[in-house]
Formats: sequence, structure tokens, C-alpha cells
Amino acid sequence: MKSVEIREGINRKYPEWIFQLVTVDEAGKPNAMPAGWCTFCSGDPVMMAVSVAFERYTHELMENSREFVLALPNQEQKEAVYYCGTNSGRDVDKFEETKLGVTPGIEVEVPLIKDSVACYECRKAGSLDTGDHTIYVGEVVAAHVSEDFTRSIYTTQDWHKEGPEGFRTIEEIATG
Amino acid sequence: MKSVEIREGINRKYPEWIFQLVTVDEAGKPNAMPAGWCTFCSGDPVMMAVSVAFERYTHELMENSREFVLALPNQEQKEAVYYCGTNSGRDVDKFEETKLGVTPGIEVEVPLIKDSVACYECRKAGSLDTGDHTIYVGEVVAAHVSEDFTRSIYTTQDWHKEGPEGFRTIEEIATG
Repeated sequence: MKSVEIREGINRKYPEWIFQLVTVDEAGKPNAMPAGWCTFCSGDPVMMAVSVAFERYTHELMENSREFVLALPNQEQKEAVYYCGTNSGRDVDKFEETKLGVTPGIEVEVPLIKDSVACYECRKAGSLDTGDHTIYVGEVVAAHVSEDFTRSIYTTQDWHKEGPEGFRTIEEIATG
Repeated sequence: MKSVEIREGINRKYPEWIFQLVTVDEAGKPNAMPAGWCTFCSGDPVMMAVSVAFERYTHELMENSREFVLALPNQEQKEAVYYCGTNSGRDVDKFEETKLGVTPGIEVEVPLIKDSVACYECRKAGSLDTGDHTIYVGEVVAAHVSEDFTRSIYTTQDWHKEGPEGFRTIEEIATG
């Protein structure tokens, strides 16, 4: 093993999955932020944890909400995910701009993203500040899958430089 | 989107990465537990979070320790990872049984696993109980990479049934 700078060492983690974290403001208007830093964290009940930087608009929405949705984007949503990750819901209506569709959940007021590989409806159960992010934990109270889209996308090492094409399916990563 | 049982919905998450969580007991004897429920959770300082079930021996070790190591296993360590995931350090010496090699870290007393794709030395910074697990957060204080092994392994949907072959590289997953 060779000791390396921490930032260099982190590059070994790719490919890393990516979710869209969906929240709503007080008026019920939805917003989505790509979140790679996400994990399941309980089996019974099923719970998920997602990490959000303090300065994000989504952080503000998460602080003021009891509910959120985690959605696994499909391979046709790369452009939309990239747009959501490079613009702030403070300035733009991301769903309007990306034409991502929404559809109601069954347990929470936050909508699902249409055609997601999977959507998990979550009810906030706790949080923990860690460095420059907060980990939000939610109990998964409902799950949905797309019947048409089954392949989610992953980030590759240079996705920040590559733009939407930096998000790839496993098959695209393996072949290219 | 189609509403499904939560457990069925979770299957859409695969492939999911897997780490080995390395801890030591009071005598300094190391133990390793595969942990897929792991995420980065801060950029500055770099921090990672890993979720450990209450009943695990590793949970006991994590409660009594200030340090841990997260290691990304390489494709030749599938059998060892499977062994570590299906046996308890309460009963066996996993490093003895698997012949996984250890090598000292530079910032923590917990050893690295030799030939890991990457190892992250962590100093415990917080924890949060969530359902049936505890999320442990650590600041990454050093990173190491293998010069020979660069491909980590991921879990596939049926890995619990498949055994060691259920852990696959991205290339192995893509080619079926």
C-alpha cells in the first residue's frame, strides 16, 4: 500500500451511485439535488441516510421539512441530473427547466420523479452534523419502481469535468 | 411509477459498493466486517460514515474504539470478504483464517488490509443510532492505495445466495 493525499485516495471510490434528493418548499414546490453521498442505514425499519452540504438550498429545505424522497435516476436523465447539480433551486425551478416529471407519492407530500429506476419515500428520523455536511436519516415508508427503466447511473472519476456524460450506466463504464 | 414492497424496491439499488470495516480489540487484534452501507459525508475535512448493526461484534469494537479503517477490497479478495461477512470475530480470527495481510497505517493503530484498492484511516468523530444500526462517522486522516490492484468489487442483487461470486467487478457485472 502506498500513502497518498486523501483527495487522490478518494478517487479509488468510483464508480459511485447517485440519487436525486427531492424536497419541497413551504408552498409545496419541489426541488431536486443529486446526492452521491447516500446509504441505507437500517434494515428493520428500512432507513436511508443522505449527506447534504450546509450551504445548499436543499439543506434549508431539509431543515424545514419532515419528509423527502430519494430517487435513482435512469440513463435518460443524465442531462437533468447534471442541470440539477449545477444550478440552485434558489434561482431556478429545476423541474420546469429540466422537464423532469413528477408524480405523487403515497405516504409523503414530496413527489416522486417520474421514470426513476426507483423512488424511496422517506420520513425524517434524525440528523447529524459532520464537518461541512449534515447527514439526514429517513425511514423509508414506501417504495416505487419504474417498469420501463431499470438501469441507474453512476459517477465516474472525472464526471465533474465531463458534464452529463460523466454519469454512466454500469455497461457504459465497463465498455468505455 | 409502480408502488412495490419496500424490500422489492431496494433491489433496484444494485450494484452497491462494499468496503471492509477494520477494527481492533483491546489487545490490538484486528477484525474485518464487510460494510456496503458506507458513504462519504464531508468534504473539508474529509469524513466517512459507516453503518453497523447493533448485534455485530464490530459494533462492540466500534463502541470501544476511537479509530477504524475502511478498505476497498480488490477482485482477488472475494472469498475473504465473503468469509468475513459470514463469520463473527467473536468466534474466529478472520485475518488468520482468510490469510488477508495487514500492514500498519500511519495515523491510527488499526492496520490496513494489504492489496486493498484503497484504505482510509479514520478517527471517530460522531455516531447516530438509526433503527437497528449505528452510523459511525470518522474523519479520514490518511489514505493509501494499492499500485497493483485498482478494481474494487460491488454487490449484485443475489449476492447473499451466490456466495463469493456475488461480489463482482464492474466489468464482470456488465458482461453478465
